[in-house]
Amino acid sequence: MNVILEFSIIPIGVGISLSKYVAACERVLAKSGLHYELHANGTNVEGDWDTVFAAIKRCHEVLHEMDVQRISTLIKVGTRTDRKQTMQGMVLSVQDKLDKGG
Amino acid sequence: MNVILEFSIIPIGVGISLSKYVAACERVLAKSGLHYELHANGTNVEGDWDTVFAAIKRCHEVLHEMDVQRISTLIKVGTRTDRKQTMQGMVLSVQDKLDKGG
Amino acid sequence: MNVILEFSIIPIGVGISLSKYVAACERVLAKSGLHYELHANGTNVEGDWDTVFAAIKRCHEVLHEMDVQRISTLIKVGTRTDRKQTMQGMVLSVQDKLDKGG
Amino acid sequence: MNVILEFSIIPIGVGISLSKYVAACERVLAKSGLHYELHANGTNVEGDWDTVFAAIKRCHEVLHEMDVQRISTLIKVGTRTDRKQTMQGMVLSVQDKLDKGG
Repeated sequence: MNVILEFSIIPIGVGISLSKYVAACERVLAKSGLHYELHANGTNVEGDWDTVFAAIKRCHEVLHEMDVQRISTLIKVGTRTDRKQTMQGMVLSVQDKLDKGG
Repeated sequence: MNVILEFSIIPIGVGISLSKYVAACERVLAKSGLHYELHANGTNVEGDWDTVFAAIKRCHEVLHEMDVQRISTLIKVGTRTDRKQTMQGMVLSVQDKLDKGG
Repeated sequence: MNVILEFSIIPIGVGISLSKYVAACERVLAKSGLHYELHANGTNVEGDWDTVFAAIKRCHEVLHEMDVQRISTLIKVGTRTDRKQTMQGMVLSVQDKLDKGG
Repeated sequence: MNVILEFSIIPIGVGISLSKYVAACERVLAKSGLHYELHANGTNVEGDWDTVFAAIKRCHEVLHEMDVQRISTLIKVGTRTDRKQTMQGMVLSVQDKLDKGG
């Protein structure tokens, strides 16, 4: 089952600068071989359900190993059976509607 | 790794009444043996990471088998290493602060 | 426009115990006169769009006044025009489907 | 109060192709004068709390006017008082940590 997913991970109790933790998680994704994109409010990923969720679990493990005691993560996951969709395709189909004024 | 998690599953393209799909997913949770609570905006679950996420994946599979072609699910997942926390404990600790006016 | 909404507020950089901040926000809701329910992963609220969002904004202000420098809040908001729905009604309609095995 | 926010709006009961509704909402943002970026799983926006939330409310109104009877929207909103942060800055600070291997 293929997913298009977004997640954002919030380490709690380690101060207000979170970028080094986000970076650690980006490295987990880089190793996973998954296609992903960091943006201002989270990371978009696409791939097989099990591989994607294994990467997110690994992010929690890595952050706890960095002495983060508490983590809250938001995940939005989409699946569909009518056709294969990509992250790029989702943006393009909105862009197409905007261009056509439809 | 223990999690306290909330999720809500939105079947897309099957009309505006979603309760039968939510009910199908509640049955998946009942079979899982996990502790869970339905509320007005989602379902709270606690348990082992892998067991909880396997149940959510199963919800997607069951809904797709019910001919839902597209699903969007929101998951909020918390882990912590300082101590074991329960869903009941989270509500009680806020209640305690409210009682003390603190 | 009436909303059924859930939100959870995460104060960042103030340690791992967040209950006193959640309690401060519950007091904002109590003063608002809105119908709300705290649960293990957030707070459900129902009411007029503007009143509900004013309360959430006030929560951010109150927490910043308590010296929280950074806050991340998750909001899930639903509106519908087909009929008036209540939080209680949402749970009951799922329960009804479960009872009927439907 | 300045916010960095992400939202994604799900029209329910209007079929599985949602791009024309997302496009309608992008037009609301374009008119608002806010800085925003569409990505595969939502739209990032930054600006004043009231202006940003007024735009999201307007999206709900516009979609209901397009005969969408039910809408579920996810919003993640961040505020901070330590310094002004931009969406671009959030991505750059993670990128910086990745470059330094830190």
